[in-house]
Amino acid sequence: MNDKLDDETYARAALTYLAEPADPCLATLLRAHGAVVALDAISTGRLPAIAEAPRGKRAMESAMVRWRTRLPLLPPPDEVLAFREAGIRLIRPGDPEWPGQLADLGDAQPYALWLRGQADLRFNCLRSVAIVGSRAATAYGSYVAAEFAASVATRGLAVISGGAFGIDAAAHRGALGADGVTVAVLACGVDTPYPAAHTELFDAIAAQGVIASEWPPGLHVSRLRFLIRNRVIAALAGGTLVVEAGERSGALNTARHARDLNRRLMAVPGPVTSDLSAGCHQVIRDWQGVLVTSAAEVAEHLAPVGHLGIGQTGDVQDLNPRDLLDLDSAKVLDAMPRRGGLGTLRVAQRAGLAPATTGACLGKLATAGLVERCDNGWRLGRA
Amino acid sequence: MNDKLDDETYARAALTYLAEPADPCLATLLRAHGAVVALDAISTGRLPAIAEAPRGKRAMESAMVRWRTRLPLLPPPDEVLAFREAGIRLIRPGDPEWPGQLADLGDAQPYALWLRGQADLRFNCLRSVAIVGSRAATAYGSYVAAEFAASVATRGLAVISGGAFGIDAAAHRGALGADGVTVAVLACGVDTPYPAAHTELFDAIAAQGVIASEWPPGLHVSRLRFLIRNRVIAALAGGTLVVEAGERSGALNTARHARDLNRRLMAVPGPVTSDLSAGCHQVIRDWQGVLVTSAAEVAEHLAPVGHLGIGQTGDVQDLNPRDLLDLDSAKVLDAMPRRGGLGTLRVAQRAGLAPATTGACLGKLATAGLVERCDNGWRLGRA
Repeated sequence: MNDKLDDETYARAALTYLAEPADPCLATLLRAHGAVVALDAISTGRLPAIAEAPRGKRAMESAMVRWRTRLPLLPPPDEVLAFREAGIRLIRPGDPEWPGQLADLGDAQPYALWLRGQADLRFNCLRSVAIVGSRAATAYGSYVAAEFAASVATRGLAVISGGAFGIDAAAHRGALGADGVTVAVLACGVDTPYPAAHTELFDAIAAQGVIASEWPPGLHVSRLRFLIRNRVIAALAGGTLVVEAGERSGALNTARHARDLNRRLMAVPGPVTSDLSAGCHQVIRDWQGVLVTSAAEVAEHLAPVGHLGIGQTGDVQDLNPRDLLDLDSAKVLDAMPRRGGLGTLRVAQRAGLAPATTGACLGKLATAGLVERCDNGWRLGRA
Repeated sequence: MNDKLDDETYARAALTYLAEPADPCLATLLRAHGAVVALDAISTGRLPAIAEAPRGKRAMESAMVRWRTRLPLLPPPDEVLAFREAGIRLIRPGDPEWPGQLADLGDAQPYALWLRGQADLRFNCLRSVAIVGSRAATAYGSYVAAEFAASVATRGLAVISGGAFGIDAAAHRGALGADGVTVAVLACGVDTPYPAAHTELFDAIAAQGVIASEWPPGLHVSRLRFLIRNRVIAALAGGTLVVEAGERSGALNTARHARDLNRRLMAVPGPVTSDLSAGCHQVIRDWQGVLVTSAAEVAEHLAPVGHLGIGQTGDVQDLNPRDLLDLDSAKVLDAMPRRGGLGTLRVAQRAGLAPATTGACLGKLATAGLVERCDNGWRLGRA
């Protein structure tokens, strides 16, 4: 990022202050006129003409009142820019770090994402699994979540979760303990950790992974926000694993989103005598979720298309990480030889890109496990 | 039974002494000439001509040597008859108590079955579930087996198992405790209980249910006999439920038979950290077994065709208990009014049967839950 905010970025940052995520009226406005015009409309109170207004004029007017109510909370561009000094960055659709798979959310795609942490969100989510479950986890559930998270992290998958007590925390900690990357998607500002008891955990996640939120810094959680947030966890990850969940657990809400988004849905069985496994059994029995008993099975179910071994037939996630690459990285990946390794300069020549750009792309591709270092430079990853 | 053995019954009793169950050469001989000629052939050592002899002449001759080796062990007809005084009866294909579904075993159908106990084998197996699992069960497995068995027994299903330590014993005891019917299919003589520690359990089963075996009284178990026996458990029951099983458990052998026989296959999940649930998870994950978490689900999956509530679509067991009724019982069932009750005499008139025959049939139908007593006589069961 440079040291000025472009209009589109500021407009989208502003919208995260003015509207709650997945607001259908704002989606209509964005689709018709883009973020800059939308922000201008809210600021001036003058609705531009919208040919397609499925919600009706009255709904749009009432939304306008709602959005304008928050105008006093909106910081000016230089204050938004100042968050960078606190290690907080904003990404929006089209940015290199924007995870393309969020487009699967359609009108409910986030307006922008606030991030805090070292890891690249887009590249780490290319090979990732959401591990979710109950806050009131049992010792069994916490053990399994930590164990599976550590093991999939070792296999190069990022572990995505919601930063809550119980299964979420066990999953994050398991990935961190295995020196893996973990992503916490919060329902509050990335600088306003909830629960507060997880302040140290969030710092550790920021140091080794990344914290993401649709809400601007300083915002607090609400019950509804947890539910809205869940669709982002499901959409970011290649698949969702439910470790322990009661029949009314919020984790089942995430699972439902994963299913509706055609992501791989998995669940860990447990004792039928445990209420906290009832939701997992429901996922397996009624939602065609896959019963998994080991991290190896999780990794197998998330194998990218084309990387399956012989005998492992179809029925894998529709999401091909290669489809989510930015153009330069895709060129670099295409330029890699099928066998053996190449130096960065040779790759740059084959890809038709500058060596510096090629080096940056190789780094990102390596993070996603698509290439790896070898004696004479770089080669395709063995994933 | 009368107090003489007919030739066919004696011949089949004799074959249980001379050959191990599911002997393909004996099946060939039986199909071509029947049991009486087969026994005569073994006694005289002269093989009759067999047009279809897929196993070849040499195999048949070697089988003959094998069978004739056991001739000295064969008791004469009056000794076989004398078992009745010890409460042991023999049933053979075509007998009123013979469970017709055993025909699904084809050439591996038992030659005959030795029985000990009060309950009618055929009628009780019409609505039944096999509950099987590991001998070295955990407290969790034993609890679930007993609980599920008691609960399905209360719903009028007979619980079939193998009389072993662990899950088998818990299932039998659960059914007995709920005043239900339970069937133990042993791999030894019905008067030679194995394990010996279960002598009292077997007596309780005989008093309230029935013990069945393909092997004649006095015979002891062997490892191979357990495996051969398992197909009978799977074939007798409308479905098989695996409660706890390691990955190499004999219970998975029973489960495999149930699947191959198109019986409903179910398994109870457990902790992924327990080796004894690994076999259950395998059944659910790899064999399309149904994950069940309650006895109600077991009963639902075993609902006879035509008794399904609205919204419960297809995919139930092919076995319709009505198809397995003997002709008289089927006539009686057909004669029952759709609504309200009738006295035995009126049912007899409608069915065109003698009142005594009708009364006997009503008793059997009631055991199977197909009819029940009411104020003015009998009415259709509410199952």
